[in-house]
Amino acid sequence: MGQKKEKTTIVLFSGDMDKAMAAFIIANGAAAYDHEVTIFFTFWGLNTLRKDEIVHVQKGWLEKAFGWMMPRGAKKLGLSKMNMMGMGPKMIKHVMKKHNALSLPQLIELAQEQGVKLVACTMTMDMLGLQQEELVDGLEYAGVAGYLGDAVDAKVNLFI
Amino acid sequence: MGQKKEKTTIVLFSGDMDKAMAAFIIANGAAAYDHEVTIFFTFWGLNTLRKDEIVHVQKGWLEKAFGWMMPRGAKKLGLSKMNMMGMGPKMIKHVMKKHNALSLPQLIELAQEQGVKLVACTMTMDMLGLQQEELVDGLEYAGVAGYLGDAVDAKVNLFI
Amino acid sequence: MGQKKEKTTIVLFSGDMDKAMAAFIIANGAAAYDHEVTIFFTFWGLNTLRKDEIVHVQKGWLEKAFGWMMPRGAKKLGLSKMNMMGMGPKMIKHVMKKHNALSLPQLIELAQEQGVKLVACTMTMDMLGLQQEELVDGLEYAGVAGYLGDAVDAKVNLFI
Repeated sequence: MGQKKEKTTIVLFSGDMDKAMAAFIIANGAAAYDHEVTIFFTFWGLNTLRKDEIVHVQKGWLEKAFGWMMPRGAKKLGLSKMNMMGMGPKMIKHVMKKHNALSLPQLIELAQEQGVKLVACTMTMDMLGLQQEELVDGLEYAGVAGYLGDAVDAKVNLFI
Repeated sequence: MGQKKEKTTIVLFSGDMDKAMAAFIIANGAAAYDHEVTIFFTFWGLNTLRKDEIVHVQKGWLEKAFGWMMPRGAKKLGLSKMNMMGMGPKMIKHVMKKHNALSLPQLIELAQEQGVKLVACTMTMDMLGLQQEELVDGLEYAGVAGYLGDAVDAKVNLFI
Repeated sequence: MGQKKEKTTIVLFSGDMDKAMAAFIIANGAAAYDHEVTIFFTFWGLNTLRKDEIVHVQKGWLEKAFGWMMPRGAKKLGLSKMNMMGMGPKMIKHVMKKHNALSLPQLIELAQEQGVKLVACTMTMDMLGLQQEELVDGLEYAGVAGYLGDAVDAKVNLFI
């Protein structure tokens, strides 16, 4: 009889590059340990999952405004500290490359390859007017009940 | 014999409206799942619980200064991102109303109706000079030992 | 036969004084309850552990730039809110002293006395160019696998 897998869940609330990287590094580590891992993307965290091209969908002017003001995908996120109008992320990306660390888009790809479940918060999508066509492929969609269903069976539950 | 209830705890450290909303949405979801839920309000998170009217209490000048500088209650909190000197919160409140989402004050009311335990951190109150008369009704008061007593029995423990 | 100890882990990602204080207050509380406690310092959180004097080590210009821009140790950290170009931390330190609360350096000392395990994230050290000589004594060094090894046995796991 197979042993039940450990579970790990992460709520990614933040839309900062450094925090998203921390979330994916922990998620990929846990997946490498054979945990069932879920990242639940809510509020600004959802921007991590936006496609980087402009997708034409019907939406109200306020939802359009949010769409324009928020970063369009993982490559566009700023830093929570020392952002320095975009110079900070460039410096961080430079040292990461130098040290052969995976970039955020590569960390996301690895997570998908390892079967990390990426869940977009439907309440946030509704509120900020983000539609499925605007987000990357391979996501699941759920609300807080879906998140709690995973979290209650997990040993490691983080809010980032 | 009754089954023991699942427990969920949240430390709300942040004084941002969006993070407070995330805390209460998760708390209310867990309470609807019949968890025993505690939110422990510490540092800036305590501002969520301030009454919105001015309460006259005796305090030192530094404590008074903190009182004036910090937001007075859930309606006055700013956003962690895109605050734009108060325009961000107005936009968010507008889209929330449009989508029939509960506002933060309504989320707090629902939490109290559902029996979510709201605990004010006594150490923070002491440090920032906040007194019980300045906070909303129906709270419990405890320090870090009280929080840990709940957290150690809980499966989902988040720091927001 | 001795009962197995409860475990508590905290990831300290943030480099803010108030968040570092929250982390150490919870860690010291859990240690006083006889938990095995680990704080894993990653990203900006690592600045908490820098020595406050300048340590001469060989490093590239970008790593040197990070070294100069980031706060040099627990006494130099800013606040996540109301930093007001350094006036906020001064005010907080003043009220803490008035209320006989432990300062951050004292909280760190207490944690070390109580046997809280302080772990520096080696990936962050590599990326930001921080070397062991630049960090305080008595640390352990590990990557995400080391953190997960502790977290999976712990009941309380927080990301701060």
